[in-house]
Amino acid sequence: MTTAYNPVTPEIVRELQQIVGERNVIYGDPEQLEKYSHDEVADRHYAHTPEAVVRPISAQEIAAIMRLANRALIPVTPRGAGSGLSGGAVPAHGGIVLSVERMNKILEIDPGNMMITVESGIVTNQINTVLEEYGLFYAGYPMSLETCYIGGNVAENAGGGKAIKYGVTDRYIHGLEVVLPTGEIIELGGKRVKDVTGYNLLHLMVGSEGTLGIFSKVTLKLLPIPKSKVDLLVLFKGFQEAMDIVPVIMTQTGIIPTAIEFMDKLSVQTTCQYLNEHLPYEEAGAMLLIEVDGASEAQVESQYEAIGELCLERGAMEVYVADNYTTQERVWKVRRNIAEAFKVYSPVQSAEDIVVPFAQIPDLLRDVDLLAKKHGILIPNFGHAGDGNLHATPIKPPDMTIEKWDEILPMLLEELYIATDKYGGTISGEHGIGSKRKKYLSLVLQPEVIELMKRIKATFDPNNILNPGKIFPETPDAVPTDV
Amino acid sequence: MTTAYNPVTPEIVRELQQIVGERNVIYGDPEQLEKYSHDEVADRHYAHTPEAVVRPISAQEIAAIMRLANRALIPVTPRGAGSGLSGGAVPAHGGIVLSVERMNKILEIDPGNMMITVESGIVTNQINTVLEEYGLFYAGYPMSLETCYIGGNVAENAGGGKAIKYGVTDRYIHGLEVVLPTGEIIELGGKRVKDVTGYNLLHLMVGSEGTLGIFSKVTLKLLPIPKSKVDLLVLFKGFQEAMDIVPVIMTQTGIIPTAIEFMDKLSVQTTCQYLNEHLPYEEAGAMLLIEVDGASEAQVESQYEAIGELCLERGAMEVYVADNYTTQERVWKVRRNIAEAFKVYSPVQSAEDIVVPFAQIPDLLRDVDLLAKKHGILIPNFGHAGDGNLHATPIKPPDMTIEKWDEILPMLLEELYIATDKYGGTISGEHGIGSKRKKYLSLVLQPEVIELMKRIKATFDPNNILNPGKIFPETPDAVPTDV
Repeated sequence: MTTAYNPVTPEIVRELQQIVGERNVIYGDPEQLEKYSHDEVADRHYAHTPEAVVRPISAQEIAAIMRLANRALIPVTPRGAGSGLSGGAVPAHGGIVLSVERMNKILEIDPGNMMITVESGIVTNQINTVLEEYGLFYAGYPMSLETCYIGGNVAENAGGGKAIKYGVTDRYIHGLEVVLPTGEIIELGGKRVKDVTGYNLLHLMVGSEGTLGIFSKVTLKLLPIPKSKVDLLVLFKGFQEAMDIVPVIMTQTGIIPTAIEFMDKLSVQTTCQYLNEHLPYEEAGAMLLIEVDGASEAQVESQYEAIGELCLERGAMEVYVADNYTTQERVWKVRRNIAEAFKVYSPVQSAEDIVVPFAQIPDLLRDVDLLAKKHGILIPNFGHAGDGNLHATPIKPPDMTIEKWDEILPMLLEELYIATDKYGGTISGEHGIGSKRKKYLSLVLQPEVIELMKRIKATFDPNNILNPGKIFPETPDAVPTDV
Repeated sequence: MTTAYNPVTPEIVRELQQIVGERNVIYGDPEQLEKYSHDEVADRHYAHTPEAVVRPISAQEIAAIMRLANRALIPVTPRGAGSGLSGGAVPAHGGIVLSVERMNKILEIDPGNMMITVESGIVTNQINTVLEEYGLFYAGYPMSLETCYIGGNVAENAGGGKAIKYGVTDRYIHGLEVVLPTGEIIELGGKRVKDVTGYNLLHLMVGSEGTLGIFSKVTLKLLPIPKSKVDLLVLFKGFQEAMDIVPVIMTQTGIIPTAIEFMDKLSVQTTCQYLNEHLPYEEAGAMLLIEVDGASEAQVESQYEAIGELCLERGAMEVYVADNYTTQERVWKVRRNIAEAFKVYSPVQSAEDIVVPFAQIPDLLRDVDLLAKKHGILIPNFGHAGDGNLHATPIKPPDMTIEKWDEILPMLLEELYIATDKYGGTISGEHGIGSKRKKYLSLVLQPEVIELMKRIKATFDPNNILNPGKIFPETPDAVPTDV
């Protein structure tokens, strides 16, 4: 899997310009290139400046770029909005960044089949904006919907807060147009909702982190917009009480909430301070934010009443009902701003998205607390309780030196991931492996499984041209080719 | 992909007996072997008798069998209940049938995580029987739930009548223990509900038709049992009126029904006659059987009232409400017995499961009618309207000679599949490709896509030992090795 790549020469640049037009190639402009050197991973150790950026407008242009890259042995890293959290869109080996930013058209809205087809560079939230008048929506969107691109969502199989009821990205991807690493353009799936024609390459592409193909078109399954929704903010003494109730809600009431989000005391207090907001009972040990939606107000009312009563019976300190937009926004704003708030508190941190079977979250939280104490750092806990997906975020205390932090973090992450594995979990529920977690992959996957994945990669990409240096542990870290 | 396989010799049989015990190897007993020579495909052209049948009890035994088969170059065909409809469990190249019939244990019920882990040879309906007391159920089951095995469901990514709301098998498969064709035992996924750790091998296995691995354990996600359900039998003049309403139900009421099943006049009349049953308005041109379920009686009542009113507004002739078990069973019995009824009418037929974007079903039905008239045969239409999955079943009229039928069928199927493709569909929504449809695969998949699938197969199974002769067009038909 190690390849000696060639640099992007002025001749290559001219060829790229012929494919996408002169103004769609960035080259020799350090300031512009720098913008494509990183994603949202805070640690700039994972950043790497590309030698050139190309901005194609069609699958045909992407295919021509890939054929050129194979011929010249130059790595290509596909890029959406750059909002990823694992280094997936970073050109770890230099070479070309292929940005889909110009491919942002809505190609077809088909309300009769409840499907939409878009280009991969569209901002995810725009899909829902145009769908509103049809009474339909795309339910697979992640928390970053206002900045991310759908193509990146597909590449990472992005998750989000509504997975418990609606699943994540992959449930809604019914069709893809993909440019293979070797330059062929293929169609997978379509507007049908069942398909068992050969192997499921469609869902092999979803979550492949830009290493098996570049998406040019995406066909998404839509759902009717719920007519009503209500949020409950439920306060508990501690996280054990909060988490114990999660499966009980579903089995006892028969209701699958849209979201069950979890926030610990540290997260709530830090975020309220950051937002200058006050939530009731900020001193509660843990909060659940439970959303229910449905086809009528009456249905939603009976649902939230059943859940609220159950929570109180089972020892919740208080249940607040947010049944209008303003109040709902107030509580969700706290949840959404936790990461931001901690960035202000201390920008040096490691955004994590470990996932365990949800009943094991209390066990995991106890281990996380011990780890934070052992290493003298902060680890606020928040995330998607209904999915067992925890954003345990190690944060450097403001008074700790960066050298100390750099020494601690790799050990801490390894211990955190080992704990996650011990409880039947894995190291990433929605952010992906990318470059950030590749050295930890073998903690959770058998060597035989990693070997199979590597062979699949080689099957699709014999020259290892597409997004090298990601996912697989032994791939070397960034090797500068821009001499 | 063509391999010269070796026959199963008495020495090989002795080795197999050492692995699984003498009484779990069937050899030299034509009557017993014949039982493993076919699945539920009516056409016995696709049957093939195995040289030996082995019945292992564990992943370790399966692994030992696969190592032996690789060493001796003998094909192995995994088999569940043999209830498949594409020849998937038939040993097309002879060799060994590996039956999981003894691996039928429930390994763990984990109500706290809403998960169950079972062995692959359990009858699918038994899973739901044991779960009843926990208020949980497995929603991915197909129509044949009372006979099929969960392992076969995973291999075929079995569908069913409730896909519109609940999806199909793959949505519920969260963990698999798999024996690879080369004999390694791997674990994929687990009891977590989100996982983006490397490529999605878990869902590459689902629907791989027993060609990429043999499943020994399956971990399934569960849902709360709905507290209430109601069926509506809605009568229409013709199929266009019936199908037009399908997306409107969902977008206008915001309700996703559990099932929207479609039956044409021919299907209803033939089945009522077979069952000696009378449904109201048997002469209606088309019927929809719409099921709604939910967490309370009130919720379900408001749902079926909204749907019923909408149907009447939009030109339905009549809406019958089946709100008790007896009446529900009466209407579903008709739906479930259509295939059986036509088998009695004329046993020579071809069970199909073509699928199109659901709004295109009326277009497809018109083409199907023309095809039936052109070839002078019957094609009743029934199936899962909400999924666009149509069981258009070509049937030999009792007075047509079998020679004539054998001449017509391949042409007819090709025309049927081409029509399906024209409307954005594909040739199988739930039964799989197997041996029955492999020669038609290239009608709906690009050569590049088939090539990728073949390379993946070779990556997993370099000796092409596991279930050869399936899926891929150019694999030769059954080549007898039992000389």
